[in-house]
Amino acid sequence: MTKPELGVCYYPEHWPEETWAEDARQMADLGLTWVRIGEFAWSRLEPARGRYEFDWLERAIDILASAGLKVVLGTPTATPPKWLVDEMAEMLAVDADGKTRGFGSRRHYCFSHDGYFEECRRITNELAKRFGTNHGVHAWQTDNEYGCHDSVHSYSSAALREFRIWLSQKYQSPEALNRAWGNVFWSMEYASFDEIELPNLTVTEANPSHWMDFHRFSSEQVVKFNHLQVEIIRRHSPERPVIHNFMGRTLSFDHFDLGEDLDISSWDSYPLGFLSDRSDRPNDFALRYAKSGDPDFQAFHHDLYRATSGGRWWVMEQQPGPVNWATHNTAPNDGMVRLWSWEAIAHGAEVVSYFRWRQAPFGQEQMHSGILRPDSVPAHAFSEVSQTASELTAVDGIEIGKSDVAVVFDYPSAWAWKIQPQGTEFDYFRLVYDHYCALRRLGLSIDFQNAANPDLSGYKLVLVPGLFSWNQQLLEEMRKTEAQIVVGPRSGSKTGDFQIPGDLPPDLPADMLDLKVARVESYPENLEINVPGSGSFKFWREHAQAGSTASVLLDAEDGSPALIRQGNNTYLAGWGDDEFLRNILQDVTERAGLSTFNVPEGLSFRRNGKMIFAFNYSRENINLNELGIEAEYLLGGSNLAPSDVSIGKLT
Amino acid sequence: MTKPELGVCYYPEHWPEETWAEDARQMADLGLTWVRIGEFAWSRLEPARGRYEFDWLERAIDILASAGLKVVLGTPTATPPKWLVDEMAEMLAVDADGKTRGFGSRRHYCFSHDGYFEECRRITNELAKRFGTNHGVHAWQTDNEYGCHDSVHSYSSAALREFRIWLSQKYQSPEALNRAWGNVFWSMEYASFDEIELPNLTVTEANPSHWMDFHRFSSEQVVKFNHLQVEIIRRHSPERPVIHNFMGRTLSFDHFDLGEDLDISSWDSYPLGFLSDRSDRPNDFALRYAKSGDPDFQAFHHDLYRATSGGRWWVMEQQPGPVNWATHNTAPNDGMVRLWSWEAIAHGAEVVSYFRWRQAPFGQEQMHSGILRPDSVPAHAFSEVSQTASELTAVDGIEIGKSDVAVVFDYPSAWAWKIQPQGTEFDYFRLVYDHYCALRRLGLSIDFQNAANPDLSGYKLVLVPGLFSWNQQLLEEMRKTEAQIVVGPRSGSKTGDFQIPGDLPPDLPADMLDLKVARVESYPENLEINVPGSGSFKFWREHAQAGSTASVLLDAEDGSPALIRQGNNTYLAGWGDDEFLRNILQDVTERAGLSTFNVPEGLSFRRNGKMIFAFNYSRENINLNELGIEAEYLLGGSNLAPSDVSIGKLT
Amino acid sequence: MTKPELGVCYYPEHWPEETWAEDARQMADLGLTWVRIGEFAWSRLEPARGRYEFDWLERAIDILASAGLKVVLGTPTATPPKWLVDEMAEMLAVDADGKTRGFGSRRHYCFSHDGYFEECRRITNELAKRFGTNHGVHAWQTDNEYGCHDSVHSYSSAALREFRIWLSQKYQSPEALNRAWGNVFWSMEYASFDEIELPNLTVTEANPSHWMDFHRFSSEQVVKFNHLQVEIIRRHSPERPVIHNFMGRTLSFDHFDLGEDLDISSWDSYPLGFLSDRSDRPNDFALRYAKSGDPDFQAFHHDLYRATSGGRWWVMEQQPGPVNWATHNTAPNDGMVRLWSWEAIAHGAEVVSYFRWRQAPFGQEQMHSGILRPDSVPAHAFSEVSQTASELTAVDGIEIGKSDVAVVFDYPSAWAWKIQPQGTEFDYFRLVYDHYCALRRLGLSIDFQNAANPDLSGYKLVLVPGLFSWNQQLLEEMRKTEAQIVVGPRSGSKTGDFQIPGDLPPDLPADMLDLKVARVESYPENLEINVPGSGSFKFWREHAQAGSTASVLLDAEDGSPALIRQGNNTYLAGWGDDEFLRNILQDVTERAGLSTFNVPEGLSFRRNGKMIFAFNYSRENINLNELGIEAEYLLGGSNLAPSDVSIGKLT
Repeated sequence: MTKPELGVCYYPEHWPEETWAEDARQMADLGLTWVRIGEFAWSRLEPARGRYEFDWLERAIDILASAGLKVVLGTPTATPPKWLVDEMAEMLAVDADGKTRGFGSRRHYCFSHDGYFEECRRITNELAKRFGTNHGVHAWQTDNEYGCHDSVHSYSSAALREFRIWLSQKYQSPEALNRAWGNVFWSMEYASFDEIELPNLTVTEANPSHWMDFHRFSSEQVVKFNHLQVEIIRRHSPERPVIHNFMGRTLSFDHFDLGEDLDISSWDSYPLGFLSDRSDRPNDFALRYAKSGDPDFQAFHHDLYRATSGGRWWVMEQQPGPVNWATHNTAPNDGMVRLWSWEAIAHGAEVVSYFRWRQAPFGQEQMHSGILRPDSVPAHAFSEVSQTASELTAVDGIEIGKSDVAVVFDYPSAWAWKIQPQGTEFDYFRLVYDHYCALRRLGLSIDFQNAANPDLSGYKLVLVPGLFSWNQQLLEEMRKTEAQIVVGPRSGSKTGDFQIPGDLPPDLPADMLDLKVARVESYPENLEINVPGSGSFKFWREHAQAGSTASVLLDAEDGSPALIRQGNNTYLAGWGDDEFLRNILQDVTERAGLSTFNVPEGLSFRRNGKMIFAFNYSRENINLNELGIEAEYLLGGSNLAPSDVSIGKLT
Repeated sequence: MTKPELGVCYYPEHWPEETWAEDARQMADLGLTWVRIGEFAWSRLEPARGRYEFDWLERAIDILASAGLKVVLGTPTATPPKWLVDEMAEMLAVDADGKTRGFGSRRHYCFSHDGYFEECRRITNELAKRFGTNHGVHAWQTDNEYGCHDSVHSYSSAALREFRIWLSQKYQSPEALNRAWGNVFWSMEYASFDEIELPNLTVTEANPSHWMDFHRFSSEQVVKFNHLQVEIIRRHSPERPVIHNFMGRTLSFDHFDLGEDLDISSWDSYPLGFLSDRSDRPNDFALRYAKSGDPDFQAFHHDLYRATSGGRWWVMEQQPGPVNWATHNTAPNDGMVRLWSWEAIAHGAEVVSYFRWRQAPFGQEQMHSGILRPDSVPAHAFSEVSQTASELTAVDGIEIGKSDVAVVFDYPSAWAWKIQPQGTEFDYFRLVYDHYCALRRLGLSIDFQNAANPDLSGYKLVLVPGLFSWNQQLLEEMRKTEAQIVVGPRSGSKTGDFQIPGDLPPDLPADMLDLKVARVESYPENLEINVPGSGSFKFWREHAQAGSTASVLLDAEDGSPALIRQGNNTYLAGWGDDEFLRNILQDVTERAGLSTFNVPEGLSFRRNGKMIFAFNYSRENINLNELGIEAEYLLGGSNLAPSDVSIGKLT
Repeated sequence: MTKPELGVCYYPEHWPEETWAEDARQMADLGLTWVRIGEFAWSRLEPARGRYEFDWLERAIDILASAGLKVVLGTPTATPPKWLVDEMAEMLAVDADGKTRGFGSRRHYCFSHDGYFEECRRITNELAKRFGTNHGVHAWQTDNEYGCHDSVHSYSSAALREFRIWLSQKYQSPEALNRAWGNVFWSMEYASFDEIELPNLTVTEANPSHWMDFHRFSSEQVVKFNHLQVEIIRRHSPERPVIHNFMGRTLSFDHFDLGEDLDISSWDSYPLGFLSDRSDRPNDFALRYAKSGDPDFQAFHHDLYRATSGGRWWVMEQQPGPVNWATHNTAPNDGMVRLWSWEAIAHGAEVVSYFRWRQAPFGQEQMHSGILRPDSVPAHAFSEVSQTASELTAVDGIEIGKSDVAVVFDYPSAWAWKIQPQGTEFDYFRLVYDHYCALRRLGLSIDFQNAANPDLSGYKLVLVPGLFSWNQQLLEEMRKTEAQIVVGPRSGSKTGDFQIPGDLPPDLPADMLDLKVARVESYPENLEINVPGSGSFKFWREHAQAGSTASVLLDAEDGSPALIRQGNNTYLAGWGDDEFLRNILQDVTERAGLSTFNVPEGLSFRRNGKMIFAFNYSRENINLNELGIEAEYLLGGSNLAPSDVSIGKLT
């Protein structure tokens, strides 16, 4: 049971030193206990090679600590300074078009560059040595938002060199690689690892196996880069947790792999920016929630990142008002900053930290609001943060147990379907999100499980949508569990080498699911196939042939099986629309013995044991009684106003 | 009278040698008689420079031949292996943005590269020597799908060098070129051929004459590249026809020029992929036919490629199920594979060959279905191929005579209007296709005639839509024929140098058509000009002034002439919408003494003499009697179910 | 009071010398008095380095002068010939993607290249020496359409070198630059000016201050380039006015700065091309006016360019029929060429010059119509030009006084909001244009005032929409004037360094407007906030806090102030829709004591003192009496047919 806390992101280097103490005092007064600093300050920490200027940072930490604040210290490796870049211009990443991604903003480095790797080792080492045991430093953040600005994949000569080494280690011989990739196709065979190129700039698409390995390699380069810093920090700063701040809907590297090296996963939650720029919701939905955010998007990431480091997680950056970076930047409705904060806590966040303390009047993010305005007057969010802080003191802590439902999540599957969507809409995130939201409409709390290393024990319902390829551990977990398991669509449709399995998808042993997918179709918007009485398939549907031990429960209107079941395993032969998913999940939750209720659009609902948490994203009142919820309320009540929060205990 | 046959594309190098014999037996049992192999196998035929490994191919041919199959052997020049590309990296094409188009897929070569040209000579020579008189080899295919993946135009240094030589040979002096291009405009004059650049990467558009010559040059480079192989094959492999497989809606090189070197033209017919990705049809139409294909698109290409090599033609690759490469990949409705096969035969195909025998579980096309599934079980198409094969044995052969109607077709016109559309919708294919479909709606069978070298004798109606520029032979043919000739819009609007003719468009002698187009307009979608009582012009309309010997038959609502006639020559002063084209063509077919009937959307209809062929692309029954067709049916009957075929003899 | 004249653009080098005299005679007969020549003729004036061939040009000028025509002689620097480019390939501009913008069209040079700068000095000097006092040369044009084809910004090494010098001169020390740009943000600090890069090709957006200086620098390079030529011409050709021809909706350089060096501003008015390609109007509007043009667009530019050189201005190129360069190229309705000509004159044009005399049958603009067709027959515009010329002889001249209303216009603001739109629709031109059109709907005549150097005396109403940053002179003018001043939205929201002002926007002294904008929002299409009773804000709205001396006149429906007033100063806290702007401007014009009337869509109306000018862009008759206008008409009458012109004197 964690006692939730609040924090803030702060840049002492942006402000006159004489203001730091007052800032610290005001933060503490507001009820904040954590403050993240330092992550973009390289040019101030080392203005020229070897000229370390750490004293100002120490003074800042001292001042913050004196006010009772705990510091998260960031490594500054997301923003190498110009003098360093000029020393080794080859450290810059190259985009898929072959253009070098230059200095002048941030994340201007290639994860595969040896020289920059050594520079990161050096600066992290210096910082960790100096501040590792500083009494004010209570945690560390590595770098900042890996993958942001599409920065995982680099097509540089450094990346090519490392990729060839990586391939040679994986395959040992070109012949093995040629077989795994099927390079006999189109005479793509290599006689040596030195012949292999990066998969960009080909005449038509490159081999999907080639792309898949490049995705794996690139993800591992990020993990390796992060690992270097974690090791150094752990060596010099024992007991302080190491954190990284992930972003929303970022799937270019495997967050489970990276999260293994962290003590705490965190993410940067920008509900309005994400709805504007990273959503598949239809336009009318986006307009309806333009000032509150997608009611499921935050929950999804809270649940996902709760899983990536074994349960401990934070919101490192919480949107406090309008931001600068989305296509359109609205202001949140009054109450939403408090709502988002509480929602994170309901999903188990140990800390919710706002970005940022004071709006900067300069630079790229000058239109990004803070808790204070640029003129140091409290901004809109101030009072909501204050209210949240007060309310938090009344909470003993939030107990996050295991949910009844698990969704198996897999970053490589995201890469696979990006490489080979087969129909433009086939995006892994979108597919999983549709299933996640359908579960949420039934009032269920959800855990994510890493497909590579799952623990399915204790769940009553497990979903495995769109999984690229099986692995032994997952199959064993599926065999062991008594949960209802819903597999598909497209799950198990490839081997790990990105080939079609010899027994065809879904490639499960016949005693689990005796089924072969004989052919698949992708549909454009507005072309659907009806499953009479249950809804429709959109975007993707499969023509499956059930073996003798599997039962076809539903047929599509053209007679092709839509829903197949064998024992606890249910197979979805298509991408269900909302109606289909509601009906099918209603049925399967009943089989699983789960009680559900209908959650209206706009209500974000979470249950931890007997505790319920309700968040109203809509512009209408929502009456929880009418939904069949009987509870005693600790905060709010059964009648939930727009942007309001209710916390109760089921009676 | 040809006896139609069926075939298949097969890649023995993709499968264990021990399975070849069974594959061959199964092909033969299914009723296939032709098998195309070898066209992407360079890395297996020559794994390193000079190390020829042809034995496996010979064994494969022997096995196929033993089963009674006739082999089409492909030259592997569309996929040069990595060792070769690494020897001469300059052989790679460069795109219009200046980016090199690298190794890793296919068609990675520049047609103008000397070194690669020599390599193609070498490998073709080796193959032709070894297999030229092999008893199993009954035909050859050169390379594969020239122009696919936008591969005709290369902006490489090799292309620049060859282009300068080509220009110097064409114009002999820079002064002549300057005059022909009008380079005095914007001070673009050259003092030497060595000053001339490729027309890409200019500040605003380059001179259209410059672009036009670059298109001509690039087309000729393809023809020259193909010619090399044809010559070698003919030398070493007498009596075996040489074939190339064209693609749909590919106009980047002159297929008539290339077809002259072939014995047989063929094309790769992917009805569903083409409707998804290469169609101007409105969205509701595309959805309606998403699982059957555009009812006119295949017929168009059948008719076009029947013309490119003097009448002999095949379908080399017939879509057998969902493919991998379109934006969305649907499965054909049951029966469509048979329908497409019969439709090709009705248009005179000697062979319909399916792509491919077994779906490959690896590589870029792993989602491309075959006649067999990857697990060797018959796929959906299998039974339809089988049915088609059985039905074919009952047919004596198809007699393709001359049609009553000819459409004059011209690849350079496609280049011209791509260079200078004047309104975004002005695409040559789209214009010709609209006229072609309007003729089809009247139940007419159509021939294409090469504008550069036409024979108009025997036709009753000739259409010349959007012809860039006249040539003497065409004018003479037009003078000689007694057919009704429909010219325009935009025909004759340029000289061969891409200048406006001195006497203005349509640039016909006054005794043929006494008319001047004084100005033209391009219209956006939804801006049309009505021609009262006849329909409307869309996209393009002209303000023409008729001389004394020409009669204005129709005016647009603003008083500008819409339809002008002089003797047999009728001029269309705009791009007619469906209604306009139907009305005008109805009128002119009556003048031509042609009988017509109204073909509903969704019915593909073809007549060869007394024989009629009807193909139902729609989801509704079509009753041929109700359309006024009286026939005795050899296959099917007057009531045509969806996806069904009827073949009859008019009574 | 100027006596308006007509002219034409002519290219003697395009036509046989024997036709020049007849062309000249016909021009004069038509009533033209000016002819522009020479601006693209470098390859004919100097076919090889140092080989000047000016005799033909002298003969052409003599012939034109003999016919009574006054020549505007253009410098040919927009089209350097190939031999020159080949001598110094580094003179070519580089686009933001790093691609060199090559030879083969026009404007292929980088404004920052030393070598080309010297070449321009040389050729201008030679021309000015030879023709400076030629009796036929009555004016000069420098270069052609600076900025056209996005040619202001170059990312070449020459531009980088000059930019670093420019920055070092502006800031004197890297520390000053770092402070001004806020480079501490993201460790972007520079230790030397030589470390600074151009702002393109960064990983995510570059610092807005960096971009802003690059825009300023690039604009100044254009001014410097033009200044060189002006100086040379003035030295050798006294008394002849120097002109440049601006384009429509081109904001990439500061036309006020450049205009200071000119005697006469001119612009190239292509109403149909601009409506097709440079308009924010909704699609139905664009279709409605596809053949007449946007009824406000020409007036806007007439008024704007009247301001850029102190009042003297021309239309240098007037569209005479369909053009070649827009997405769709319609023909003007009959009468529109006359209408456009008269409209320019009503706004004070001294000369309206048509582009071009005879349509060229070759080159990039072969589809651009002229006064003559390519076959020398009068084209459609001929008779309208003739009519206009006749009517002009009856006019004594047009008196353009000061208008009652001024709009403060600022090119740097256009750069600022392009750099940081914050919502995709926030375009400075669009914002100002919306306000301008709303003023026009009230029948008002409008002046533009340069924000950098305004004179607000004598106006009754001044609008300052979207002004990036204040300057002292503007503030002083605002204090001095008794006009009603309407400020906002977004005005004064930055310091000159592109930082948020310390006192927050709108950054006005409290005694002028006691107001702080606490936060802002950008809205997508279809998300609006209602201001009850007055209309709505779209795209952009602000949450402002009024101090004690300011009054909130209107609130938005969420309670945030929408309209704030203090004394004469009124603040708009958002981007008003049409209804809002009409209501607010109606109110403020009444306060200003201005009489207004409702101008219907499609009517272009202009008043100079008692004289009124009405132009009917619509397809319906417009009755001026019904609008409440009582006048005696000199041309036309109160009933205005489509495409017709009425000129009257108010009674």
